[in-house]
Amino acid sequence: MDLAEFTAQLNAELRHADYADIDASVNGLQVGPETGSVEHVAFAVDGAQETFERAADADADVLVVHHGISWGGFDRVTGRTYNHVDTLLENDLALYASHLPLDGHQQLGNAAGVANVLDLEDCTPFGEHGSEYIGQRGRAAERYTAATLRDRLEANLDTGGEGVRVLEFGPGEIDEIAIVTGSGTDWLDEAATAGVDALVTGEGKQKVYHAAKEAGITVMLAGHYATETLGVRALQDLAETEWGLETTFIDAPTGL
Amino acid sequence: MDLAEFTAQLNAELRHADYADIDASVNGLQVGPETGSVEHVAFAVDGAQETFERAADADADVLVVHHGISWGGFDRVTGRTYNHVDTLLENDLALYASHLPLDGHQQLGNAAGVANVLDLEDCTPFGEHGSEYIGQRGRAAERYTAATLRDRLEANLDTGGEGVRVLEFGPGEIDEIAIVTGSGTDWLDEAATAGVDALVTGEGKQKVYHAAKEAGITVMLAGHYATETLGVRALQDLAETEWGLETTFIDAPTGL
Amino acid sequence: MDLAEFTAQLNAELRHADYADIDASVNGLQVGPETGSVEHVAFAVDGAQETFERAADADADVLVVHHGISWGGFDRVTGRTYNHVDTLLENDLALYASHLPLDGHQQLGNAAGVANVLDLEDCTPFGEHGSEYIGQRGRAAERYTAATLRDRLEANLDTGGEGVRVLEFGPGEIDEIAIVTGSGTDWLDEAATAGVDALVTGEGKQKVYHAAKEAGITVMLAGHYATETLGVRALQDLAETEWGLETTFIDAPTGL
Amino acid sequence: MDLAEFTAQLNAELRHADYADIDASVNGLQVGPETGSVEHVAFAVDGAQETFERAADADADVLVVHHGISWGGFDRVTGRTYNHVDTLLENDLALYASHLPLDGHQQLGNAAGVANVLDLEDCTPFGEHGSEYIGQRGRAAERYTAATLRDRLEANLDTGGEGVRVLEFGPGEIDEIAIVTGSGTDWLDEAATAGVDALVTGEGKQKVYHAAKEAGITVMLAGHYATETLGVRALQDLAETEWGLETTFIDAPTGL
Amino acid sequence: MDLAEFTAQLNAELRHADYADIDASVNGLQVGPETGSVEHVAFAVDGAQETFERAADADADVLVVHHGISWGGFDRVTGRTYNHVDTLLENDLALYASHLPLDGHQQLGNAAGVANVLDLEDCTPFGEHGSEYIGQRGRAAERYTAATLRDRLEANLDTGGEGVRVLEFGPGEIDEIAIVTGSGTDWLDEAATAGVDALVTGEGKQKVYHAAKEAGITVMLAGHYATETLGVRALQDLAETEWGLETTFIDAPTGL
Amino acid sequence: MDLAEFTAQLNAELRHADYADIDASVNGLQVGPETGSVEHVAFAVDGAQETFERAADADADVLVVHHGISWGGFDRVTGRTYNHVDTLLENDLALYASHLPLDGHQQLGNAAGVANVLDLEDCTPFGEHGSEYIGQRGRAAERYTAATLRDRLEANLDTGGEGVRVLEFGPGEIDEIAIVTGSGTDWLDEAATAGVDALVTGEGKQKVYHAAKEAGITVMLAGHYATETLGVRALQDLAETEWGLETTFIDAPTGL
Repeated sequence: MDLAEFTAQLNAELRHADYADIDASVNGLQVGPETGSVEHVAFAVDGAQETFERAADADADVLVVHHGISWGGFDRVTGRTYNHVDTLLENDLALYASHLPLDGHQQLGNAAGVANVLDLEDCTPFGEHGSEYIGQRGRAAERYTAATLRDRLEANLDTGGEGVRVLEFGPGEIDEIAIVTGSGTDWLDEAATAGVDALVTGEGKQKVYHAAKEAGITVMLAGHYATETLGVRALQDLAETEWGLETTFIDAPTGL
Repeated sequence: MDLAEFTAQLNAELRHADYADIDASVNGLQVGPETGSVEHVAFAVDGAQETFERAADADADVLVVHHGISWGGFDRVTGRTYNHVDTLLENDLALYASHLPLDGHQQLGNAAGVANVLDLEDCTPFGEHGSEYIGQRGRAAERYTAATLRDRLEANLDTGGEGVRVLEFGPGEIDEIAIVTGSGTDWLDEAATAGVDALVTGEGKQKVYHAAKEAGITVMLAGHYATETLGVRALQDLAETEWGLETTFIDAPTGL
Repeated sequence: MDLAEFTAQLNAELRHADYADIDASVNGLQVGPETGSVEHVAFAVDGAQETFERAADADADVLVVHHGISWGGFDRVTGRTYNHVDTLLENDLALYASHLPLDGHQQLGNAAGVANVLDLEDCTPFGEHGSEYIGQRGRAAERYTAATLRDRLEANLDTGGEGVRVLEFGPGEIDEIAIVTGSGTDWLDEAATAGVDALVTGEGKQKVYHAAKEAGITVMLAGHYATETLGVRALQDLAETEWGLETTFIDAPTGL
Repeated sequence: MDLAEFTAQLNAELRHADYADIDASVNGLQVGPETGSVEHVAFAVDGAQETFERAADADADVLVVHHGISWGGFDRVTGRTYNHVDTLLENDLALYASHLPLDGHQQLGNAAGVANVLDLEDCTPFGEHGSEYIGQRGRAAERYTAATLRDRLEANLDTGGEGVRVLEFGPGEIDEIAIVTGSGTDWLDEAATAGVDALVTGEGKQKVYHAAKEAGITVMLAGHYATETLGVRALQDLAETEWGLETTFIDAPTGL
Repeated sequence: MDLAEFTAQLNAELRHADYADIDASVNGLQVGPETGSVEHVAFAVDGAQETFERAADADADVLVVHHGISWGGFDRVTGRTYNHVDTLLENDLALYASHLPLDGHQQLGNAAGVANVLDLEDCTPFGEHGSEYIGQRGRAAERYTAATLRDRLEANLDTGGEGVRVLEFGPGEIDEIAIVTGSGTDWLDEAATAGVDALVTGEGKQKVYHAAKEAGITVMLAGHYATETLGVRALQDLAETEWGLETTFIDAPTGL
Repeated sequence: MDLAEFTAQLNAELRHADYADIDASVNGLQVGPETGSVEHVAFAVDGAQETFERAADADADVLVVHHGISWGGFDRVTGRTYNHVDTLLENDLALYASHLPLDGHQQLGNAAGVANVLDLEDCTPFGEHGSEYIGQRGRAAERYTAATLRDRLEANLDTGGEGVRVLEFGPGEIDEIAIVTGSGTDWLDEAATAGVDALVTGEGKQKVYHAAKEAGITVMLAGHYATETLGVRALQDLAETEWGLETTFIDAPTGL
């Protein structure tokens, strides 16, 4: 597949244009030539020296990541950026990133992946960010308690040995669950207004503690990395199954 | 002591005017009458329903906190803010907050407190934030390893049972240490440029992992709450020893 | 009636959402708890210590005003704001405000009330303010002169003893009249372009004198307070007649 | 005197450069040729068709005003601006304006003139506006009551038949008085903090009523025009006495 | 024809309202009275002392130009602006300007005029500027070479003796041509993406050289003045033929 | 010499920090590794594919240019930027740029170089740009006419066969000359106010014609490239003579 075609199809599927004004990440092709051929695609959560080298070792043509290296652009190609770009160019490896669009995609996205893991039903968009959504909410097929919800997350997510932290301030029985992967505690107010019983996210800021306590909502902090592998996994599946490309998943957990 | 005088003296000691343009927190008296008398002062890290009630139970006249309830102001006194203000007014309890000025104060501040715990020498300001600093750096009186540094932090900070997380990417021997309490991983680049061996902070964002790894710096995540009790403790000491006021410390750890 | 329902119905009737970006006033519930019951509603032009105390004396549950106390929000609950909030909370009195939406409502609003007093016909929106209107214009059922127009206003508005000031620069016979209540002289240019004979408003800035003279338009300055009692009066009528609530009107003229 | 020299000297005396960023008025020469001679200068409060024609009738070379015609510049020379410019150019009449600099000048300014009329002593700058002041405060040589203060203003200012309006909320004896001419009620908070007994200004916005009442300060509304003739009068005196120019004062009261 | 009607018709034909937010030029009537009669219209590329005087000598009532004198408005009517306005007012000559709307008009505009000179077919809008276009592209009826394209331009445009400069970096045969008159080299990237063979514009910035070379596009620099006479010529034709007005074209080439 | 030291010394000599807020160019090292050695430095006016390849052919370690490739930063390393960066990285060639600082340096800068060519005396900074200057003015040691000034420029600058264009609107004898290299016609007003006889610059926008004519100033358009080789030449001299480095000048005239 032609690199331009690969890029255009992913951009369309993930609706990158709709997120252009609300995402600090420069989504789409971040580093790559005008023309090129794509046969082997690597996937990882983070764009970093480690994943660039491992994708190059795997002989990939493109690396697709959730966190790229261009956040509002670069002023210079120096320091850490020089090393990144040098590794990519030397190995003819293009870099493609999708941040908020991959969080919010209602079928392929990170939150949709967690909802699937939790067996939620009647899922609808959650997590307003400007004119778009970056999460999902739904009703548990069978009620959870805080303990069974934590267990389900720990059993199914790649938490790298770190347990899920629980702020247990909600009702004993958990029916309605909202999900914003990564760093999602800013959406606690929306969760309170929506009347959900629990908010599942990755990492938590200190201030979420009292906010959750006063709102009476249980918060699960399941790890930033752990909650954000599902989106790139879904893209890998798409590339392999639908587009017939060779793929590699690069697991580089941060424990955060 | 008169409330206005109490407020004016703290504002001056903490140089609130110099931080006015760089801090989202509205520092100083956040809730309180024009005239009042201060005999008993409570201190806590977070301004929240729990700490307001406990300060009222202790019969305090003012509660001094690091995290207040006015971040850029309120549009309305409704919802959670109504509850907060109602509790404060009903109990004749004034609320005083100092955020970044208390992080950065080079003698009384949170970072200065951690530096003291770690026995650092030749301490200088670190953590540029606009025209001010919000942290501190110094040289260890005796070299640490990552393990001994972690142990020292766990032994001396109020981490609430959660251990200190270590990203061990720096040199085996740790001489130079930079400190930004709370959420301080945005200052990793400054730490790299400054050539320190380790950065001690409270909570870490996911992206710090690869940044620290590529910079070759060890990062200690000692807890947001744990690293930020030292500043209000130092203010408590000042109020009690220097100003002869009755004081109470309200420990309400979040585990985050 | 439930407080949340009372608030939601007024917000909808006055189309507060449409004015959100153009009004410095924070419209809707400015001070009040999450849940509460409304049986008795007081109405006043200005939210102030005097009207708060009189509404509390009348045992009202909510005070509805045209000028509230939150203009772009508060940084702190101190000084005059502390006194206001303290009085409201101590008396379990909620505060609800509607500024530009109540000026511009084409049936219940202040300008509509003045148009009614003047017997205007074929009334249409006037006074562009961003994407909305805050006034009204119409044709006199019977022609006025400047003197008869002034007399009609003085006879029907609560001008508190101060006469209506007349800048008589328009034609002898007055057919077409534009109304912007309160401080409306910034709309003189729109009045000139619209070809009206007179502009009726509350208070006038100095610069309106020569502008009106050169445009050949008669301006009536009927008092800010006087021209703005009609909107809250109409809301009082609605609450009493339609919703069956007990009501009180608090007349506190400023003479301005 | 050369027009360029006349302009440069007034600009320097009134410190126009210091007010450049805080005044919407384009101060200095607003309309005039590069070279010209100044023998006869007219003075008026307002730049308007009426004062332009009367200055032309008096054969003035320049008209100096407090309120000019360029507020943030013109997009076009059409409509009312066309008429203004046409009258000026046809009569070889230059237009010079000084707005806030003339309000705030501590010897020649409008507030200084009112302070002089009231026999104030130990006058200091009042009325912060960005980095400058636009008013003055001082102590009465002999104490006023609200009634004697009103009488003194009515007797000495050109109020055009309209009386001075008094909001009598301050102490019975008036010692300390703050002055901001024109539309100065936005400085009531500064007056309250400064602890003055009365604020003298020109025109008042409706909201000043309750603010003054709650702050316990007496406010005198002496007329926008009336309080702003003293500055241009002082400039007239300067031009005649110091620079030996022929001068004319054009009195065109607005009654506002 | 009435001046207001003349202005309104041109504004509508050129869609001035649609360009209001993207053009620094204040389009429409820049200098002129509220009422006036139009019998004789002069046309010129630039509004300047020379063209104002020549239009006055021709006894024109209005001068229509592509480059007016109000770019974001004037702060003052002094210096060069005083001379301009003085000449216009003294001669009862109104000034009407149309900048980007006249560049982009797809029938009457400057680019459309050049496209006509070059015999282009299937012309479509080119040169995105905010939400509008300011140029045109099309396919040559018969292929050009760089040399024949330069000759065609030199033969048909009023280049004032200066030859057309050619940056010959495109293919030998030129089929697809994009046109942005005046200073149009900022649209080279759009030309590259559109895959045209040549870009015709007026004046070129230095940086276009390497950009064109690396993009493989031939650039023709035919002169700013030369490429922008066609729009005002088309308006002249409209005024004369459609509206029956007397017209004069004032040719004042700049050689730039 | 170490690359970091080379960069730091040039940054200091050219005072890059002082121009940081006023220059769209990202000055200093634009592309390059953290550590490297500099033995051979190439110099060119423009950073482009052609100069990158010629510097690589010459085996340079760094290329110093006046026009770099980062103007406000890049969003992505794709398209033309990919080619640029790829060529630089593949050849271990660092890129260093200095834009306005090199225009304005009063000894080494482009304008200083032209002033030297013209034998100007008593040179002072000219060409205000924010808080800095980007040009120079001085008095001719011997008077020029427009013709002798043009000849002097053509004889001494690398105009690539294109003659100097002269807009001869100034006095017959030319004493005082202002210089802003590159695209400097925006400083015509400053030149008029300064009372110079001629302005020497590189390329001219169309609007300079009438402005110069009405101001009575002669303008010389000597070519953007031609006027901007002198600064990099002076840096080359510094690197070779003072720092003992091997150097190469890459002449790639654009004719613009």
